[in-house]
Amino acid sequence: MAPAPSSRVTPRTLTGFPEWLPAKRARELAWIQTIGEVFERFGFPNIETPVLEYSEILLAKGGEESDRQIYRFMRGQRDVALPFDLTIPLARYVAQHEAKLSFPFRRYQIQRVCRGESAQIKRGRFRMFYQCDVDVIGSKSSLVDAEIVAVIYEVFKALGLQDYVVRVNNRKLLSAVYGGWGISEPARVLRVMDKLEKMPRAKLAAELQGLGIEAGLADKLFALAGLRGRPEPVLAAVRELAGEPSEALEAALAELEALGRDLDAFGVPEAACELDISIARGLDYYTGTVYETALRSHPDIGSICSGGRYDDLASYYTKTALPGVGISIGLSRVFDRLYEAGVVAPGRASPAQVMVARLGEPAASISLAAQLRAAGLACELFPDARRLKHQLKYAQRQGIRFVALMGENELAAGEVAVRDLAAGSQEKIPQSACAAWLQTRMAVEG
Amino acid sequence: MAPAPSSRVTPRTLTGFPEWLPAKRARELAWIQTIGEVFERFGFPNIETPVLEYSEILLAKGGEESDRQIYRFMRGQRDVALPFDLTIPLARYVAQHEAKLSFPFRRYQIQRVCRGESAQIKRGRFRMFYQCDVDVIGSKSSLVDAEIVAVIYEVFKALGLQDYVVRVNNRKLLSAVYGGWGISEPARVLRVMDKLEKMPRAKLAAELQGLGIEAGLADKLFALAGLRGRPEPVLAAVRELAGEPSEALEAALAELEALGRDLDAFGVPEAACELDISIARGLDYYTGTVYETALRSHPDIGSICSGGRYDDLASYYTKTALPGVGISIGLSRVFDRLYEAGVVAPGRASPAQVMVARLGEPAASISLAAQLRAAGLACELFPDARRLKHQLKYAQRQGIRFVALMGENELAAGEVAVRDLAAGSQEKIPQSACAAWLQTRMAVEG
Repeated sequence: MAPAPSSRVTPRTLTGFPEWLPAKRARELAWIQTIGEVFERFGFPNIETPVLEYSEILLAKGGEESDRQIYRFMRGQRDVALPFDLTIPLARYVAQHEAKLSFPFRRYQIQRVCRGESAQIKRGRFRMFYQCDVDVIGSKSSLVDAEIVAVIYEVFKALGLQDYVVRVNNRKLLSAVYGGWGISEPARVLRVMDKLEKMPRAKLAAELQGLGIEAGLADKLFALAGLRGRPEPVLAAVRELAGEPSEALEAALAELEALGRDLDAFGVPEAACELDISIARGLDYYTGTVYETALRSHPDIGSICSGGRYDDLASYYTKTALPGVGISIGLSRVFDRLYEAGVVAPGRASPAQVMVARLGEPAASISLAAQLRAAGLACELFPDARRLKHQLKYAQRQGIRFVALMGENELAAGEVAVRDLAAGSQEKIPQSACAAWLQTRMAVEG
Repeated sequence: MAPAPSSRVTPRTLTGFPEWLPAKRARELAWIQTIGEVFERFGFPNIETPVLEYSEILLAKGGEESDRQIYRFMRGQRDVALPFDLTIPLARYVAQHEAKLSFPFRRYQIQRVCRGESAQIKRGRFRMFYQCDVDVIGSKSSLVDAEIVAVIYEVFKALGLQDYVVRVNNRKLLSAVYGGWGISEPARVLRVMDKLEKMPRAKLAAELQGLGIEAGLADKLFALAGLRGRPEPVLAAVRELAGEPSEALEAALAELEALGRDLDAFGVPEAACELDISIARGLDYYTGTVYETALRSHPDIGSICSGGRYDDLASYYTKTALPGVGISIGLSRVFDRLYEAGVVAPGRASPAQVMVARLGEPAASISLAAQLRAAGLACELFPDARRLKHQLKYAQRQGIRFVALMGENELAAGEVAVRDLAAGSQEKIPQSACAAWLQTRMAVEG
């Protein structure tokens, strides 16, 4: 039946397409469930879009990077591809089902997307990763801009990550200040300033000079981008740097002030959110508030999630204007880094809280396992009549703390011997009381 | 900013790649979570394999059908494809990570897979669908064969489907009886008998004749395949039909008898499982117990889940023999059919239990929403200061039963007006008591 060894295929996965052993996957799954629960607590329903779409849909917006990174192929006459983000499938979804949705339409989506450069392999970078997106579409209210920050705050709190900060800016503020300074090509200047964290300042100054920005103005641009901190002092500094007041500037400042007030009402603590005037993000898409999020203790991970407000989500698929605001968590990278760094506690290889060992005839063990499960305990039944030592070692390796045994003596007495592998102890308990005993023990000792 | 209408792309999805509106997706997600919970209660940990694999891996086993149905393409120099089931990725996973896994290795997997014939479109058939798999690998104990039935029984019970039956057979039994009847090519005969439900008996008899099976023997084959019901009478009838006793026959009968005893110990009621000697399933893979599951009230849906015992899971990737047993639920089809038939109650478009309306300045509404969420309620905040009637209509459409309002009067009195859209009533409650009031109301009235 088994093929000759010469015809065997080496079992392996594609570079950049990670999969985890059960213990690590248990933690990832717990993260996904926690994130979903927080999103639902804010009233976001889940949607899921297909694993394959028409390339024409996914590439409607264009962009060299998507062209290069997309996994695209022909299927018969159809030109299809794997989604490389969740925003484009959302735009298509909303445009396609517009008449059946209620607006403001909110949704969350947690799915894997694929991005890879076909030309060369960059090891260690994921080409397949989870994104966790929330968006609210069809409302221009700045309240939603604040709500997005509150959602992200609650997500990271629920994940037990204390050390993060959501950094917020507003594209209108940059436009207003740039306009006041007489900068004629704000988009091109923004594109240069967006590289601030990655390139030396001298190089950026040279690029700015190429755009007709003289040294004095460049210094002001750098000073503006250097402003970061609590809304009030930062906005005061912006006002001072901006010079000449204007209607556009006042409107942008008012929007950020409102955001600060709303964040207080949402209960987002000051330490969890700051203004950061260096954030520009995307160049054609975002039109108002923009977000990035960083872990202060892990600056190397970079932005963990990012997003912003846009005027028009789905202009490539519908003539209905769909303004909205959203944010996307790049789950896989942050999860992997924190798990490997030991910041996230290791998961358990088995979800079982208790293992029933098999000694001799199976009937008693099966019944005990069924009884424990009926009481709500996650219970694994060891199937083979191996030596007890072997079974205990298996439980230990799987991270299952309690092992329930029914040898001949216990069977005769209607008892169960329960080993606590963590404490190294064993107790005999009447079978009828076994589930309750385990539940108490687990509740007390965590 | 918006492109000219002429450059718009019609928003659409690929035929056979379903996506649901939020209410339907809410139910599907609840099913997936319920299924996962039951699997974990039996000690199965989750794993997840990549959305793309090497074609060489997925097609190692060969088979014309997989060749025709697989979504396969070149990515640079790499020949890659989308998984068309979860068994092959499992086999690759176990072979690849063998040294890091504990055996018996059990796992569950809930993922979407893709199968499509490239040549022609068959409308209404899914090409992308969820599979929910459990397998236990590395144990030959027949206890596991029974445990799989118990898992499936508990899954359907938890999903609220009362009307199902797991049909079980054993390939060894068929081999033994066929052997006793002197059938020289049992595999070819099995392949014909496997078509029993789809083809008229006369046609099958002609095919059997082509294999040298005369009419009398064909009648016995049909009689054997017609046996279905509780283990004891069915096994007695098999014994009688089989004629000459043999060691192989006795061994196969003993295995099925043990299965029946173990099922009793697992607490699987008689009505939920029956022997069905017509089930053969797969021709090269399964070697012992085989399963199918049907809903008695929806025979048109066909087998909802199926699987069986195999001698060697991963012979294409490793020389280690890996016997095991597993079953796979074809979730998408059964979910879709039952949802559309109204057997599954419709979901709600919003997970929110309460909506806070926005009247005028947002601060009070935001604080109330934050307070309700902190108390564990799923709460949506309507972001725009639209007319109350509009906001109430939105809540109604979204299936949100309670709407909390704070107009000027309520604000001054420190109260919240809560409308119950189901009852058509409204009550004023002190703000500090609002969460508790809602929780009580929901607990009492479901």
